[in-house]
Amino acid sequence: MMTLMNTVTSCIAPQMLAVEARFEAELKSDLSCVNVLVKHVSRFRGKMLRPMLVLLSGKATGTLNDAHVTLATVVEMVHMATLVHDDVLDDAELRRKGATINHLRGNEAAVLLGDYLISHSYHLCSSLDSQFASRVIAATTNRVCEGELLQIDNRNNLDLDEETYFQIIGRKTASLCATCCLLGAKFSGATDEQLTELERYGHALGTAFQIQDDILDIVGDAETVGKTLGLDVEKQKLTLPMIHFLRTAPREHRALLRSLLTSREADKVERIRNLILPSKSIDYARGQAEKLVTRARAALQTLPDSEARLVLDTMADFVINRPV
Amino acid sequence: MMTLMNTVTSCIAPQMLAVEARFEAELKSDLSCVNVLVKHVSRFRGKMLRPMLVLLSGKATGTLNDAHVTLATVVEMVHMATLVHDDVLDDAELRRKGATINHLRGNEAAVLLGDYLISHSYHLCSSLDSQFASRVIAATTNRVCEGELLQIDNRNNLDLDEETYFQIIGRKTASLCATCCLLGAKFSGATDEQLTELERYGHALGTAFQIQDDILDIVGDAETVGKTLGLDVEKQKLTLPMIHFLRTAPREHRALLRSLLTSREADKVERIRNLILPSKSIDYARGQAEKLVTRARAALQTLPDSEARLVLDTMADFVINRPV
Repeated sequence: MMTLMNTVTSCIAPQMLAVEARFEAELKSDLSCVNVLVKHVSRFRGKMLRPMLVLLSGKATGTLNDAHVTLATVVEMVHMATLVHDDVLDDAELRRKGATINHLRGNEAAVLLGDYLISHSYHLCSSLDSQFASRVIAATTNRVCEGELLQIDNRNNLDLDEETYFQIIGRKTASLCATCCLLGAKFSGATDEQLTELERYGHALGTAFQIQDDILDIVGDAETVGKTLGLDVEKQKLTLPMIHFLRTAPREHRALLRSLLTSREADKVERIRNLILPSKSIDYARGQAEKLVTRARAALQTLPDSEARLVLDTMADFVINRPV
Repeated sequence: MMTLMNTVTSCIAPQMLAVEARFEAELKSDLSCVNVLVKHVSRFRGKMLRPMLVLLSGKATGTLNDAHVTLATVVEMVHMATLVHDDVLDDAELRRKGATINHLRGNEAAVLLGDYLISHSYHLCSSLDSQFASRVIAATTNRVCEGELLQIDNRNNLDLDEETYFQIIGRKTASLCATCCLLGAKFSGATDEQLTELERYGHALGTAFQIQDDILDIVGDAETVGKTLGLDVEKQKLTLPMIHFLRTAPREHRALLRSLLTSREADKVERIRNLILPSKSIDYARGQAEKLVTRARAALQTLPDSEARLVLDTMADFVINRPV
């Protein structure tokens, strides 16, 4: 599926290569201990979804220039920083089951490495001519932090409602995707209407993406998805399928999920999976994600016909049809 | 002593008040859980050294304007962010002696709170007309992160040399102080020579400040200094007095310090203090700090005579004559 995506995005291939080069160049330090650590970041490198959004939005509304490559690098760096710090937070959880000094050492380095990434993202962004992108990026990271803080504030909250859930993922995940599209289009001289629609596209796509992530955390196959699953359950982080289940499932099933979520049993992830899978809650979450994808695709209608627009359209579909 | 400093800085009192107001306004969120957490930041509020450097440098080279208040707030926010994340790193150490869930919860919030502060500092900075300050601030935080990374890379390194020590504190502490002076003067339209000299002043002052901090960590009285001492020793973080001691003390004393530093004895901080105090190593470090203060004061000579210049001169002296 990723290969398909790569083929589809061939129209921005040169810029994607330039993003990788700029990423490395920006992070290079005169201290070897820093460079050694930065190398570890590569293990977080993933789908490059956010740079793609910048470049495709730029291409769909005008001509790509060097600022697009810079911005695409900036958003990937911001994303990496959040992943690295998320890792610290997750790591903290893991440690509840047994702290080791290695873990702690890794943790400290991870905090600083995340700081290094975020600092360089702003540094790179401030190399652009205007303050516009710097202001938008910083406003976005403000929101991302708020989303993360709202999320940990609601950890262990078994009464989390859908509205708060959407607040969390809206700030934590969707806001950066929306900003990618907005900035890409802005630096191509897009019209105000196009900016609004592309920002809307990015927000809907990002939200759908996060819902799909949450679904995969329950129903996914670790090897296919390529990361540890069941983390939301482990962290007592309620996601859309669980919120729906706790609202609609038969009373005894709801009680069972509540008790499983707070239990420390070794097989809780497996048992929760078996409890939720036969319910309508996965379908419900998938339905919500599909609605968002429809909304995202509708937002593209205002754009002129182009290969980039077609790819954005395909991407919207892709985020909810990732391997299960 | 702090009260004396406050009296001395009365020439920037209105701007200092404006900094506090802007600090609060910038960090205010529409999420109450964020505001609750931000309140905790107040416990880190300290001497406001960095905002003072911005304002005094601006005043010593021209007239203060609103940009100075913004910049002074930005640098304080950056400083707070580093304190909050340092707390995470220190916390990690403490946890080696017994992890509690409360500690971990606090840790996660601290990572995110630090991120929130740094994000808002860039956000506030990007409200200025030009990219100049954003670029300089981000370049400075790049260096601060490098200093921190170099420091943890050298933790447990009992052969740390003076050159690397100065590299660490130069990036970690002095670079932000230098930037404060540079930006304050820049936004007053200072001459290039004044910019260079004030940056030099800030760098020397920041370095002296850190050396004094390191001295206090060994010889200070916890109650007077107002924070936990002996942390450097606990963290096996070599500081200037220790580096000097390990190079110059009698062989058996050096061997004893090395074994104490790596030991897990409960009274190691006390024993190290008793070992180093009678040596010449505290005096050596103090001498180095004094040299830097002399250099800092010399850099002020190019500035026109003014109350602000006089205060900068007094501050240089103040950093090494803080309560022991």
